[in-house]
Amino acid sequence: MKKRLLLVSNSTLHGSGYLDHCQQHISHFFGKDVKRVLFVPYALHDRDAYTKAARDKFKTLGYEVDGIHEASDPVDAVRKAEGIFIGGGNTFRLLKSLYDNKVVTEIRRRVIEDGVPYMGSSAGTNVATVSINTTNDMPIVYPPSFSAIGLVPFNINPHYLDPDPTSRHMGESREQRITQYHEEAETPRVLALREGSLLLVEADKATLLGTTGARLFTRGKTAVEYEPGSDLSFLLTH
Amino acid sequence: MKKRLLLVSNSTLHGSGYLDHCQQHISHFFGKDVKRVLFVPYALHDRDAYTKAARDKFKTLGYEVDGIHEASDPVDAVRKAEGIFIGGGNTFRLLKSLYDNKVVTEIRRRVIEDGVPYMGSSAGTNVATVSINTTNDMPIVYPPSFSAIGLVPFNINPHYLDPDPTSRHMGESREQRITQYHEEAETPRVLALREGSLLLVEADKATLLGTTGARLFTRGKTAVEYEPGSDLSFLLTH
Ligand SMILES: [Ca+2]
Ligand SMILES: [Ca+2]
Repeated sequence: MKKRLLLVSNSTLHGSGYLDHCQQHISHFFGKDVKRVLFVPYALHDRDAYTKAARDKFKTLGYEVDGIHEASDPVDAVRKAEGIFIGGGNTFRLLKSLYDNKVVTEIRRRVIEDGVPYMGSSAGTNVATVSINTTNDMPIVYPPSFSAIGLVPFNINPHYLDPDPTSRHMGESREQRITQYHEEAETPRVLALREGSLLLVEADKATLLGTTGARLFTRGKTAVEYEPGSDLSFLLTH
Repeated sequence: MKKRLLLVSNSTLHGSGYLDHCQQHISHFFGKDVKRVLFVPYALHDRDAYTKAARDKFKTLGYEVDGIHEASDPVDAVRKAEGIFIGGGNTFRLLKSLYDNKVVTEIRRRVIEDGVPYMGSSAGTNVATVSINTTNDMPIVYPPSFSAIGLVPFNINPHYLDPDPTSRHMGESREQRITQYHEEAETPRVLALREGSLLLVEADKATLLGTTGARLFTRGKTAVEYEPGSDLSFLLTH
């Protein structure tokens, strides 16, 4: 089967509604064969309210949504899913819940072996990669590992922010943080997706979509800028 | 012995040099009895360069600096320290190195039992608290626990930033992040120190110093603002 991923930087773009900025990509991605999407709301505390928001939005695109927390057996819900969407929120809370509910391996298997389409937004994009080492979130809970679902052989930094030369704040810029990550041995590449960017993966082809472009950080090399529409398929080979 | 802590939000304030903004507090804190300060540079990759920067600055204040990584036995270095300063950088890297070098317990013992003065800046302030759950840093390495040295019974968020109503960025504000932390059960209070703020603890007395104030977040309650000079001793009781 062909692996299919839609990895979105952010669910809401300033001045528009939930998932509005990428809704055409969502419709095209899940297509006409998928009728029901399994939604994973683990990244936010109020799973019911979060599922309602996803359900309302997906309804307008012609899809039914099932919340994974509504199923008596979450692994079985993954086993039966036609499509999977993991929403954003706190990446640590999300990954810990994925492990607590023992669905990491089954999601990987369904996407890789069965070709179930996987959409992630923000934290849901982080957990699709090698590890959550390049999340922006606060570590509010301690997951059993930072290793994630591993659907691609690189990491992503969502909500990427360019350095602000006018800032008086002395916390590290995003670029400095990713550079610190790459000071560690054998760390994978980091694709930094600005808000408004998304990555489409179909089998061995990866394409940068959206409007804002991305920046690729590779350990020991200078960062490289990519325009929307760029072919990033080389990222899928190690 | 009296526990003595100087917990600084940030080592460098915009427009001034390393530790300039709090140098009078540092001199007053270590006083005339301390001659040598044990510096812990674990939060940055280049420990030698970092130790040189701390050494150069402390020299101007009349103190010698020993880098803990220069000692053949780091636990023994802690055992002999007259004063301890843990610098900022990446909090995950710092805490992992503290555990890797087995100095967490010995630092706690020296500060609590022997009254050795402890100064922390940024990440070095995070690790002095209950846990690193409220750091702002990127989780570039996986420490064996988020539990920290535990010199105070609350957490700190250094480099605190007030929400920016003009921002178009959709990542969580600092306030939202801390609120998400407090959605988790039994989470301690979080003292959010703006850049330019620091907390002095002497036995059972805690005083907010600096120029910019702090905001205290308590689970299930409205956040409370504190002006410089405030007596925060109540934070030291559970
Ligand atoms: Ca987030
Ligand atoms: Ca830092």
